[in-house]
Amino acid sequence: MLIVQKYGGTSVGNPERIRNVAKRVCRAKDEGHDVVVVVSAMSGETDKLINLANQVSENPDPREMDMLVSTGERVTIALLAMAIQSLGYKAQSFTGRQAGIISDNVHTKARIEKITGDRLRHAIKEGKIAVVAGFQGITETSDDVTTLGRGGSDLSAVAVAAALKADLCDIYTDVDGVYTTDPNMVPQARKLDKISYDEMLELASLGAKVLQTRSVEFAKKYNVPVRVLSSFNDNPGTLVTKEDSDMEKVVVSGVAYDKNQVKVTVQGVPDKPGVAAKIFNTISDNNVVVDMIIQNIGEGGLTDMSFTVPRTDAKKIQEVMKKVVAEIGAKNVTVKEDIAKISIVGVGMRSHSGVAAKMFTAMAKEGINIMMISTSEIKISCVIDAKYTELAVRVLHETFEMDKAA
Amino acid sequence: MLIVQKYGGTSVGNPERIRNVAKRVCRAKDEGHDVVVVVSAMSGETDKLINLANQVSENPDPREMDMLVSTGERVTIALLAMAIQSLGYKAQSFTGRQAGIISDNVHTKARIEKITGDRLRHAIKEGKIAVVAGFQGITETSDDVTTLGRGGSDLSAVAVAAALKADLCDIYTDVDGVYTTDPNMVPQARKLDKISYDEMLELASLGAKVLQTRSVEFAKKYNVPVRVLSSFNDNPGTLVTKEDSDMEKVVVSGVAYDKNQVKVTVQGVPDKPGVAAKIFNTISDNNVVVDMIIQNIGEGGLTDMSFTVPRTDAKKIQEVMKKVVAEIGAKNVTVKEDIAKISIVGVGMRSHSGVAAKMFTAMAKEGINIMMISTSEIKISCVIDAKYTELAVRVLHETFEMDKAA
Repeated sequence: MLIVQKYGGTSVGNPERIRNVAKRVCRAKDEGHDVVVVVSAMSGETDKLINLANQVSENPDPREMDMLVSTGERVTIALLAMAIQSLGYKAQSFTGRQAGIISDNVHTKARIEKITGDRLRHAIKEGKIAVVAGFQGITETSDDVTTLGRGGSDLSAVAVAAALKADLCDIYTDVDGVYTTDPNMVPQARKLDKISYDEMLELASLGAKVLQTRSVEFAKKYNVPVRVLSSFNDNPGTLVTKEDSDMEKVVVSGVAYDKNQVKVTVQGVPDKPGVAAKIFNTISDNNVVVDMIIQNIGEGGLTDMSFTVPRTDAKKIQEVMKKVVAEIGAKNVTVKEDIAKISIVGVGMRSHSGVAAKMFTAMAKEGINIMMISTSEIKISCVIDAKYTELAVRVLHETFEMDKAA
Repeated sequence: MLIVQKYGGTSVGNPERIRNVAKRVCRAKDEGHDVVVVVSAMSGETDKLINLANQVSENPDPREMDMLVSTGERVTIALLAMAIQSLGYKAQSFTGRQAGIISDNVHTKARIEKITGDRLRHAIKEGKIAVVAGFQGITETSDDVTTLGRGGSDLSAVAVAAALKADLCDIYTDVDGVYTTDPNMVPQARKLDKISYDEMLELASLGAKVLQTRSVEFAKKYNVPVRVLSSFNDNPGTLVTKEDSDMEKVVVSGVAYDKNQVKVTVQGVPDKPGVAAKIFNTISDNNVVVDMIIQNIGEGGLTDMSFTVPRTDAKKIQEVMKKVVAEIGAKNVTVKEDIAKISIVGVGMRSHSGVAAKMFTAMAKEGINIMMISTSEIKISCVIDAKYTELAVRVLHETFEMDKAA
């Protein structure tokens, strides 16, 4: 098999851990596999570099920022290649450029466009373990270093696996798989053996930060089997793969929560065509991403409209909305900060009815008021008062019997 | 004018110093010059990275070592470019590769082969200040990162200046020029306004570590005027340039000392053809560089032979010589550690006679015994007992009136 392994910053956080990762890599080689390793910067390094940048400039140039922070992964690839070599195995490090990771030129949040990977294939053919810098690419036109944004090393690993047609992409982290919910909140949380790309996408975007969302999209697109597992133990982890009939038997695979949004309500919106467009175009022009939207039908030609945006944009949205409210002749705008979004996810929902009713009933029994609802084919999300987060997660975990394997 | 400026690790040792360097760079731009800046890693960074390497491998691979340590300069170029931009000037950073610095593939001590510099010329044309990573290059064949060895940033700066046909190459350090001798040893030491390439070469190789030797050779070859000056004050510095008639008036420009050699003596060497060749071929095969050599004519067909080697090779040479002594049938080998080499340098020696006699007389007056002598056209070196180093340097400085300008 050709296996791509990815190790995050915590897994390579110091020389001792790097030596441990080297052993793990060589074990896979001993088992007869070809191995390509993708690594992040040692934990804390990227923040240290960003801190340096902030000390020399109030508004660092994105191109220079990429030049700066991309050094973090270069340090790790060199150290890991050395550590592997010192165990008597052949290894070679590759920067994003040397691995042929071509991205667009949107510095600090570039998108991978293609991976040539010629040098990687050549190294594998020579029996070498290839060690690749995650999180970075190179522009095709200007030959400048780019970075893929936070969590981009996951994407590097999946993209490299896709380009090399690897049999498996193992993502090593500091947790040992994907859980039905946050184990710190619910002790009964159960590790999933298997989860579909779509479920993982919903969970990732809902705040369960095991895998970067774009990397899951990429894995789905190129059908790369991804396994999430811990670099600190030998537990089997969770396989993220395409949907199969087993998965459909489970109604709800996981429950996620997200406390990083705020709810914005515009009251007294004139109920006429073009008003909603005006509001959301303005928000979009200000680069704020809206998640959930609801509109209440009001009286006398006036309606109320609510939506959620990331907490980091709360201040900005308030200023933006004040102007819009005046322009469209609405009454006022309020921002509610102490909210949480609770979501249940499962491909089984497609074939099971009554899931939403069961969810709402369970929450009602505990006296939890639902402020907003949104649904997709395999997900139901509710916005509730933030103080009920833990209660809601626990109740839903129990209601849908997520502690029990299918 | 097109000026290349080079700042060493101490000059860019922290964010505050980087901001100061940015101001200095922008001042040159304000004066109407085009500016290219070459920088080293922040002081301490390279050692920190080497220390990490030693923690993961006992014998780190040179290619991976270059991948690792070349990150130090990348951090500095990004930070300096940001700092310059934050002052309102256009700037862009360039890695060795982006600057087109092509080297051979001898990792950790590569030699520059050529500099294409296309992107630098383009940046200058756009009115940008180009910030270039020193100490690093890229192999032409394998596209791998190389480093030029310690002090290699000086060479990068001179080579970039030569490639761009710069009018001046300013090397900023933590001293404010080239002195007649070590000012810490002789308070009367005088800063030279001007010195010839050849004198600088002799001084550099004799242990006055202001400029890396290869960078001076390069400057001489391509006739690049180099100025050594401090990044911490505005003193005028020392110009290293081609010889002129003024320089010839001065008999001795400087006195240097070197305590980093040991003296090896082989006693009872059979005085027959091929014996010296045998000794020095063996030493060369062991990659030890011999500096001075003397041979005393002995009695009964036996001679004594002495030579000096770097202190770091003292142990190795003793082992190597033991074998050689047995093979050639010599008596024994001794290594004397507490020696120093004292040298006087000056292009004026060519046209002035009696310089050596004056030197030896001055030392004899102080009771300093001379163990070895070697001379070149513009240099006389003596090996003496290490305890007389300071005395010899002071006496020679006074004898040749180096405290007085010509």
